[in-house]
Amino acid sequence: MTLNDFSQYASNRVDQYLKQKLDLYNPALTLQTAMEYSLFNGGKRVRPMLAYATASLFGEANSLTDASAAAIESIHAYSLIHDDLPAMDDDDLRRGKATCHIQFNEATAILAGDALQTFAFELLSDKQHKNAQQQIILIQELAKASGRHGMVTGQMIDLSNVGKNIDIKALEQMHQHKTGALIRASVRMGAISTGAENLDQLTSLDIYANAIGLAFQVQDDIIDITSDTETLGKTQFSDEEANKPTYPKLLGLKGAQELAQALYGKAIESVSPFGDKAQPLVQLANYIIGRNH
Amino acid sequence: MTLNDFSQYASNRVDQYLKQKLDLYNPALTLQTAMEYSLFNGGKRVRPMLAYATASLFGEANSLTDASAAAIESIHAYSLIHDDLPAMDDDDLRRGKATCHIQFNEATAILAGDALQTFAFELLSDKQHKNAQQQIILIQELAKASGRHGMVTGQMIDLSNVGKNIDIKALEQMHQHKTGALIRASVRMGAISTGAENLDQLTSLDIYANAIGLAFQVQDDIIDITSDTETLGKTQFSDEEANKPTYPKLLGLKGAQELAQALYGKAIESVSPFGDKAQPLVQLANYIIGRNH
Repeated sequence: MTLNDFSQYASNRVDQYLKQKLDLYNPALTLQTAMEYSLFNGGKRVRPMLAYATASLFGEANSLTDASAAAIESIHAYSLIHDDLPAMDDDDLRRGKATCHIQFNEATAILAGDALQTFAFELLSDKQHKNAQQQIILIQELAKASGRHGMVTGQMIDLSNVGKNIDIKALEQMHQHKTGALIRASVRMGAISTGAENLDQLTSLDIYANAIGLAFQVQDDIIDITSDTETLGKTQFSDEEANKPTYPKLLGLKGAQELAQALYGKAIESVSPFGDKAQPLVQLANYIIGRNH
Repeated sequence: MTLNDFSQYASNRVDQYLKQKLDLYNPALTLQTAMEYSLFNGGKRVRPMLAYATASLFGEANSLTDASAAAIESIHAYSLIHDDLPAMDDDDLRRGKATCHIQFNEATAILAGDALQTFAFELLSDKQHKNAQQQIILIQELAKASGRHGMVTGQMIDLSNVGKNIDIKALEQMHQHKTGALIRASVRMGAISTGAENLDQLTSLDIYANAIGLAFQVQDDIIDITSDTETLGKTQFSDEEANKPTYPKLLGLKGAQELAQALYGKAIESVSPFGDKAQPLVQLANYIIGRNH
């Protein structure tokens, strides 16, 4: 399967699951419209792809894999809505479209984000999965990755870093929380959803996840200065203008590119024990390093 | 036990649990300070009291009762932070103290709210409870009550009602979502945490919860026009100024007071089959009707 095929497979599967579970609830029509606007906005579904790819290492993707992928994507969507708010990054444009608070209004955007977070935990605690033991583990993974031990703290560090001179270690700590934790959760939850319990294997996957998570950010910083606004779907040099610390600023463009390559190598090596089954994970690592938007 | 004693018991117990679980996480110090500021702000802990009171109908309160009470209070605290934001109700004062975005800043308030929501699900999915079946039911209850089927939708309806002439049915629907759903969850989760499974009993508790939930709101509206700002801890006539629909506006002050009494009667009647064990629930209903702030 090519990466494109796999991307289609994962996107279709998670989108179908999300649409089915986001059933119409009449008193919440405006809220639902805003939630759907942000959930189905042409996102690349990298996190669901990771979940399905790691699930395939251990067995067939099942309803818990779907719920994991959908829950992670809901958390990701909520975080983008809140990050874009005027009090945060104040972005009007996301993937070439108006951000949620521009399309609707600030109050609706705050509430749509709030509801998308709750929706993630609603999906994972659905009794229909009939696997309470695994569901509890998955919910704990997602809560740890997205709350004060993960993503939210990353955003908090990011905001406090604006205009500051920070070193490479502090930059890495910020990214490990802000985006790395959820990418790691995508990889782990996909594995756990199909019953993976081998700790060595989970550790290999953690190494893979940490490497591509960081590579993703390094590449993001590189793209921000090498790609134009049209390709990017958001404003070029937005990090630069926001006076944010980036890898090219700390390491130079060449240094940043070398770091991305090193992380790529580490990721590939860590999943080599899985052999051919790891092909989608290898392709995903390729994509993350190769992308220009 | 007097209501005052029970209130002390429930507050101490939930506060101790929250403090213990909100362990220090160094990269998130500012976030944690903001979370604690809003969690420990002198709130009356009505929802934890409800959870402990219903738990006592079926057995001894246990660690799942604590986690439920703490999770509900975290959700409640997050909702207050976000409701107070400038884009929402724009309140500077909460229980006589600066609201979170005034004390810190808007970005921190948004993130503290986000992290408090996640914290609720982190608490309920803790493996230490070793009761995955019940944990999943509790998480599903909380997600349904606080997300797009409950609280968030209530806030959305509330915002869309400003300046509108709505009827009593629409006002009730708003309150059932905005505050009623979480009060109902407090009552149900307390019962479920101690293994309650009798559907008739859960239905009686639902009736109790719906009645006091609505009574709480009716009383809130009454207090807003009969109590002064100092007693209230927030600005008197704030509903009036915000041009919000209220029960006194729709029914007159006397009509609203009669409704509150009728709801009180319904609540007391619904828990009478529990006999003396229901004393804390009866005292809570008394308190809700009798309070002036």
